[in-house]
Amino acid sequence: MADLPSISVEDVERHSKPESCWLVVNTQVWDLTEFAPNHPGGPEVIYRYAGHDATTEYTAIHVPSLLLDTLTSTKLVGKLETGIDIPEQWYITSTNNSKDSRPKPPLETLINSHDFERAASRDFSPKAWAYYSSAATDLITLDANKSFLDRIWFRPRVLRNVRNVDLRTRILGSTDLVLPFFVSPAAMARLAHPEGERAIAAACSTKSVAQCVSTNASFPLKEIAKDTKHPIFFQLYVDNSRDKSEALLRACHEVGVKAIFVTVDTPMAGKREADERVRTNQSISTPMSGVTAKNDGKGGGLARTMGNFIDMSLNWDDLKWLRSVTHLPIILKGIQSAADAQRAMQHDVQGIMISNHGARNLDTSPPSILVLLELHKCCPKIFDTLEVYLDSGIRRGTDILKALCLGATAVGIGRPFLYSLNYGREGVEHLIEILSDELVTAMRMLGVTELSQLHPGLVNTLEIDDAVPGTVGHPYAKWRRVLQAKV
Amino acid sequence: MADLPSISVEDVERHSKPESCWLVVNTQVWDLTEFAPNHPGGPEVIYRYAGHDATTEYTAIHVPSLLLDTLTSTKLVGKLETGIDIPEQWYITSTNNSKDSRPKPPLETLINSHDFERAASRDFSPKAWAYYSSAATDLITLDANKSFLDRIWFRPRVLRNVRNVDLRTRILGSTDLVLPFFVSPAAMARLAHPEGERAIAAACSTKSVAQCVSTNASFPLKEIAKDTKHPIFFQLYVDNSRDKSEALLRACHEVGVKAIFVTVDTPMAGKREADERVRTNQSISTPMSGVTAKNDGKGGGLARTMGNFIDMSLNWDDLKWLRSVTHLPIILKGIQSAADAQRAMQHDVQGIMISNHGARNLDTSPPSILVLLELHKCCPKIFDTLEVYLDSGIRRGTDILKALCLGATAVGIGRPFLYSLNYGREGVEHLIEILSDELVTAMRMLGVTELSQLHPGLVNTLEIDDAVPGTVGHPYAKWRRVLQAKV
Amino acid sequence: MADLPSISVEDVERHSKPESCWLVVNTQVWDLTEFAPNHPGGPEVIYRYAGHDATTEYTAIHVPSLLLDTLTSTKLVGKLETGIDIPEQWYITSTNNSKDSRPKPPLETLINSHDFERAASRDFSPKAWAYYSSAATDLITLDANKSFLDRIWFRPRVLRNVRNVDLRTRILGSTDLVLPFFVSPAAMARLAHPEGERAIAAACSTKSVAQCVSTNASFPLKEIAKDTKHPIFFQLYVDNSRDKSEALLRACHEVGVKAIFVTVDTPMAGKREADERVRTNQSISTPMSGVTAKNDGKGGGLARTMGNFIDMSLNWDDLKWLRSVTHLPIILKGIQSAADAQRAMQHDVQGIMISNHGARNLDTSPPSILVLLELHKCCPKIFDTLEVYLDSGIRRGTDILKALCLGATAVGIGRPFLYSLNYGREGVEHLIEILSDELVTAMRMLGVTELSQLHPGLVNTLEIDDAVPGTVGHPYAKWRRVLQAKV
Amino acid sequence: MADLPSISVEDVERHSKPESCWLVVNTQVWDLTEFAPNHPGGPEVIYRYAGHDATTEYTAIHVPSLLLDTLTSTKLVGKLETGIDIPEQWYITSTNNSKDSRPKPPLETLINSHDFERAASRDFSPKAWAYYSSAATDLITLDANKSFLDRIWFRPRVLRNVRNVDLRTRILGSTDLVLPFFVSPAAMARLAHPEGERAIAAACSTKSVAQCVSTNASFPLKEIAKDTKHPIFFQLYVDNSRDKSEALLRACHEVGVKAIFVTVDTPMAGKREADERVRTNQSISTPMSGVTAKNDGKGGGLARTMGNFIDMSLNWDDLKWLRSVTHLPIILKGIQSAADAQRAMQHDVQGIMISNHGARNLDTSPPSILVLLELHKCCPKIFDTLEVYLDSGIRRGTDILKALCLGATAVGIGRPFLYSLNYGREGVEHLIEILSDELVTAMRMLGVTELSQLHPGLVNTLEIDDAVPGTVGHPYAKWRRVLQAKV
Repeated sequence: MADLPSISVEDVERHSKPESCWLVVNTQVWDLTEFAPNHPGGPEVIYRYAGHDATTEYTAIHVPSLLLDTLTSTKLVGKLETGIDIPEQWYITSTNNSKDSRPKPPLETLINSHDFERAASRDFSPKAWAYYSSAATDLITLDANKSFLDRIWFRPRVLRNVRNVDLRTRILGSTDLVLPFFVSPAAMARLAHPEGERAIAAACSTKSVAQCVSTNASFPLKEIAKDTKHPIFFQLYVDNSRDKSEALLRACHEVGVKAIFVTVDTPMAGKREADERVRTNQSISTPMSGVTAKNDGKGGGLARTMGNFIDMSLNWDDLKWLRSVTHLPIILKGIQSAADAQRAMQHDVQGIMISNHGARNLDTSPPSILVLLELHKCCPKIFDTLEVYLDSGIRRGTDILKALCLGATAVGIGRPFLYSLNYGREGVEHLIEILSDELVTAMRMLGVTELSQLHPGLVNTLEIDDAVPGTVGHPYAKWRRVLQAKV
Repeated sequence: MADLPSISVEDVERHSKPESCWLVVNTQVWDLTEFAPNHPGGPEVIYRYAGHDATTEYTAIHVPSLLLDTLTSTKLVGKLETGIDIPEQWYITSTNNSKDSRPKPPLETLINSHDFERAASRDFSPKAWAYYSSAATDLITLDANKSFLDRIWFRPRVLRNVRNVDLRTRILGSTDLVLPFFVSPAAMARLAHPEGERAIAAACSTKSVAQCVSTNASFPLKEIAKDTKHPIFFQLYVDNSRDKSEALLRACHEVGVKAIFVTVDTPMAGKREADERVRTNQSISTPMSGVTAKNDGKGGGLARTMGNFIDMSLNWDDLKWLRSVTHLPIILKGIQSAADAQRAMQHDVQGIMISNHGARNLDTSPPSILVLLELHKCCPKIFDTLEVYLDSGIRRGTDILKALCLGATAVGIGRPFLYSLNYGREGVEHLIEILSDELVTAMRMLGVTELSQLHPGLVNTLEIDDAVPGTVGHPYAKWRRVLQAKV
Repeated sequence: MADLPSISVEDVERHSKPESCWLVVNTQVWDLTEFAPNHPGGPEVIYRYAGHDATTEYTAIHVPSLLLDTLTSTKLVGKLETGIDIPEQWYITSTNNSKDSRPKPPLETLINSHDFERAASRDFSPKAWAYYSSAATDLITLDANKSFLDRIWFRPRVLRNVRNVDLRTRILGSTDLVLPFFVSPAAMARLAHPEGERAIAAACSTKSVAQCVSTNASFPLKEIAKDTKHPIFFQLYVDNSRDKSEALLRACHEVGVKAIFVTVDTPMAGKREADERVRTNQSISTPMSGVTAKNDGKGGGLARTMGNFIDMSLNWDDLKWLRSVTHLPIILKGIQSAADAQRAMQHDVQGIMISNHGARNLDTSPPSILVLLELHKCCPKIFDTLEVYLDSGIRRGTDILKALCLGATAVGIGRPFLYSLNYGREGVEHLIEILSDELVTAMRMLGVTELSQLHPGLVNTLEIDDAVPGTVGHPYAKWRRVLQAKV
Repeated sequence: MADLPSISVEDVERHSKPESCWLVVNTQVWDLTEFAPNHPGGPEVIYRYAGHDATTEYTAIHVPSLLLDTLTSTKLVGKLETGIDIPEQWYITSTNNSKDSRPKPPLETLINSHDFERAASRDFSPKAWAYYSSAATDLITLDANKSFLDRIWFRPRVLRNVRNVDLRTRILGSTDLVLPFFVSPAAMARLAHPEGERAIAAACSTKSVAQCVSTNASFPLKEIAKDTKHPIFFQLYVDNSRDKSEALLRACHEVGVKAIFVTVDTPMAGKREADERVRTNQSISTPMSGVTAKNDGKGGGLARTMGNFIDMSLNWDDLKWLRSVTHLPIILKGIQSAADAQRAMQHDVQGIMISNHGARNLDTSPPSILVLLELHKCCPKIFDTLEVYLDSGIRRGTDILKALCLGATAVGIGRPFLYSLNYGREGVEHLIEILSDELVTAMRMLGVTELSQLHPGLVNTLEIDDAVPGTVGHPYAKWRRVLQAKV
């Protein structure tokens, strides 16, 4: 880079048209004339910065290495002349700026996951906030994920020595967890912080907490895993092109991923209306899935435009292919019925993850804890056969403890960790400490000191038991046959 | 019209008294001196415009052809002189103007049926909004129609190939529907848009969606059906004068109506208090039923004044007459109990429609989905015998899907389509697209691709099952007898 | 009165001290020097008007005849000189004036009982509003009285000839009611309107609606019943002095009262906190019970200070005495359990009235409709044996209809009629018309035309059935015995 | 004290540095140079007042005798010169001042316990309000403690002689209670009023109401009990150092304590977030437990910093030790399950107290009344064996009555009495009168006059019965074993 020609502000400004389009990023001057029409996020956003500095906008969306990875170095035409006054008009306000100019509340004043949510709603860009916080249509499942947990009472036992609490557990045969919760996969963490998934990884590494990385992460897996020592899982969206998925799995094997969480509940993105309502000309690239998310003209939201590569035809038969291309434990992420849990037991998978995708896919899909109870009622054998994970709605140490009492091996936590990225790595670490402390406190109050002491007898689920289906099959089988005959 | 005499503004203004009363409508000058006392909406509103231009008010209420249909052409005294300045005082503000002068939100920003409702509440005249949105007394059933649907959880199945979704269904033996929902009948769509039911018809024709036309439509059936190719049903209020009903049925036969939905739940209009509270001197004519709705002095609301022609003595015996005068499939619209569903099976009808009239008739009448469950519990045989339709409270693709899982052949949607008329034909089309997209999304998330795959096992109704009556008869039969003896 | 001496303003003003205290009421000048210390409402309020005109305050509280009835005519010292200027300072603003100086909404704009409540909350004096609207402590039963009714669904029957609806019923062997509801007894209607219970009587007479007059009415029974032809019941608080109660019963016999509703649920007034919070120096006399209500120093509220004459020791044995002094049908008003309903069957009474005193006595006492269901579950025989009335929470025609379907002979309506007094006799008549119209509409929608057609099969009570006790006795009888032994 | 040297303001001001630090408290001048670094609340607060008068701050936190008890009298260097002008700058505003400068509402306008809560929320310092009102995390149990009581209906009996009501009961064999409720133990009543627990004791003594004194009381037990004649219980937190606990028990024996309520539900303080959010440099000493509460740097709240002396290893085996060091009746305070109630029956204790620590420890721990019902369902024998007390959520006379009907011997009331301290001793007495009056009223309305007449048949608990666990053991015992094997 030292021998790049020095280019003046005036020179750059001369290339402000589609026919000759230069942009400055981090003092490097790039010629994007050829590339712009092929920009996954559309050429408009590039033309908007033509002849100007685009560092702020670029950094908010792309990993630093992307320009060089995407273009040949011949497009790097020079380095911006230093020691000069940058004209004021170069500073173009991003469309994506924060909603609130007040400084963030000090991190130590945040004492629970709700605080992180509140802060994020203030500090994030409208688009980031909408993308993360939104859920399917009328938000009924979003609310139920939490309210069903809140209607479970503990049955605390007292007068037990609870001085020493041990939260360790071994999963999947050989992976040791220091804490029985992990970071659930979520797309595009760079929307929240420039370091995105890397900041999460750094915090998890420090705290020895497991992290499940999304196919739609903002960084390549290798960058996320670099210099970390915590257990990493990989969330897989199976690509229409199996080759791409296999390449991702190879990357998983290389970085020592511990398990594959294959998403089975998302043939397409759900209708997340808050996400659709926030218009933006911002586009976001995801290096692993290779797609770029942006709002389409029809208000499709980031999620919808990003999901096109996902194979809508994915079905049980495809699990054979998956097993053939990875030796890692496979967890089916997104099971929502005892019927499918039973079916999972007939396949070569090592676990299921009860999830309604954070209530983002199908509104009035059942709250996660209800499905966990359905398993106890309809196919309790699964707890002897597979490991059962759960996410969607976990916000408190008490929530974690309830799921564990009811047989979950460990739980995933999604949005709260994205919100904690508001404070970067320190935020993630602080949230881990909070949840860990809440869990220890709750266990002591419940009279238990090890995860092996947990069992359903320590919770009273009667207030939601009436909503638990008691049969896997179809209560109106006879009626169904007739209907099918008629139509 | 070319040879009509040209009349000056001054000439018109000379006839501004009851004894000589001219009005201008669409540049035509009419002598309404004789007609005014017989105006179904009362003479006052005519006298108010005497000697002035009444185009705006007239157009908001009447079909253009009505003046000529009602009066002989001898009352058309001339054409307003052109090329002159219309005096400013001619512009009389309608009492019926929009509540909000801001421009409507752009149609593409409306992404669900609730958005249409919100926009209509702002853009409609107070009277139109009150008439459409109002429901019986304390609005308990209005709320329950939706909340009972919201308390049904899906039981989604995953890992199924859901690439291709097919929403087609055949009903009533030979009518093919492209989508399993249709426009429920509602009176006086011109309150919402000058093109009223015709705009709905045009949109339905484009989208191949079925439409059920009300006896109280603002246009004659023939005008609505003109140049359309979608399935049309006809909603029949049986008239005190059977002759009039038979004439309507003949019109149905002529335009190729596919089925008669005879309303059985409305011996009189319910007490819709919002409707009664909005006073107006506006009157609305309905060409088919031949009545004119206006607020009576006692706050009766539009609905109450319009329903006087409906036969309060209509009963099961009358179905023989109805069958004798039409060969079309008959659907009993407004069934609200298993007892009446059972009784319907003993008559020559082809279907029933569960409905509480959009919660407009009897407050605390049961939410529609509850009655559908009652049929499963008390007379499941009906699903083999008759087609079962349902309306009242359907607002989302998920709502449609739940009703279909529980055995509905198709569902009707009322108010949302009236609200979509805020944007005319384009609004109706946009709403159809939204609902269709929501339904497809929900089906994929549920793991189904054809309507024939739907069955009750895909929904969890436990949270409302406790409210479903288990018996058609009277649990306190013995007590009843004694009471009757005593009184 | 013609020969009363004429007294000047100056003369009156000279007697403005306790030692010589004159007041002007309706131009009559009274010497209250001796009486003031014995004034049931305390002497202060009298001294406040000493030497002044007290007409406004007096009229708001007392019946016109009270002064003459209470004092001998020797205390009437003269007549205020006419044709003179009354000094402005004579007009003392009452502490009890209306909360809102805006004119009342026109009567015809009130279309349901809630409208009357809203208007009364604006127009009544703070004290009157507090006294009428208040209920026991946390208002839980107040809310439940209505919400339990709202959770009952109708099971409407359609296709029945409902042209002619007949609401007549015969009760207590020989009393014919035109409408199956009546005005429930309530104390001190003069707080709402100078004509108080007389205005109610006049309206009831016009509309042939029954009225139950309270022991604490603001007028003597004879004045209320004068010139009326509607059925009158009498609500009896049994006095510590049986003589007084017997005198009241003799008055009942004289004016042709049809039944005695003896209150059994009020050994003392409940804790009605809104009533206690509004301080006032206003006192209110009740001519029949002979007591005067005013706030005591300790915030006891009007109700508490008024109830001291009621016999706290009243018990089942006293019914023999009651029967011995009246031949009229006896209804036990305030039954709240099947146990007491069963006990009532063993006594010589003709009916019971389920009531929680409008939720004014014991908070979390059961909502009335719940007790009615308890009777069906625990002692259905009562419906063959006694007549069962009900009040507390009836606000709509649908509420009336539900109670009648569940076996009530007729229902009482209290607060709404007090609120309707805001408009005097016309208000009461208007409310009767509204309730009657709502009831007719609801019956038609339910598919019934006579009260004899009503039965429990027309309502779905499943949403509240779980709260209905199934046994009269004590589920933990064994436990009870042990406890009693221990204490 | 008379012979203490007189010290001038100027002299005091010279000692305003850590190296020489004098403070004035109640005109006494103390040299705290040596003590400050050892101050349990940290030296900063002392240095803040160095060379100044600290009377206000000291008095708000410490008992008057503490300085002399803690320091030797040699540190008392003199007496502030009298008759001089105190410089204005000496008056340092406490960080702990009241939130609202308006005068308190007059005591007689407070008519229920909610009024006391509202007044306290206005008048208390933010820290005091936060400490008392806060509860665990999302406040679900806090709300449920009351709402579950509110969902219990009475089954009132009428027509009983209820003139004379007797609330007396004998507990623990020989202690007579005039009223069946007592003041539940709560820490640091001086936060609310300088007289703290002594004011409560004075009021209880006047009213003959029992009081349970906390280990963390702001005064030594002896000071609280001095000159009183009411029954006193002692709440014991078992200290890591058993010696300290034994010393406390000896003090109990000396002052004639009637029973030991040993807390079994608090191995550590719960996460009370409101408490943690209010930062303060105020520290509070508790003479009996010897600890000082202050916010730690990490937002631990007063409660967390205060609980460090409590033995986290306390378990059933320790009850033997407890019995060996006291002859007094032992009540296990904090039982929350039938399983532990059963276990209590196997130990030499005289009673249990159902409590969730005022919802302050574990959120979604069961509401107290639910646990009481669980005992009836799972181990009714306990009512014959032990006395059962209950606190957490009692706010009304009706609440007390419900708990008594369901078998509680007596109930404890905590926060309301702390709030009543807003008015000192008079406030406590007023609250006792209110609760007593509410209880008498409710009993009359229920048709009972003595506590021995109470039994579960007088309440209808059906609305919460579905939430009562029916088994002590583990419904999924089999599943549990498998899980343990796997992990």
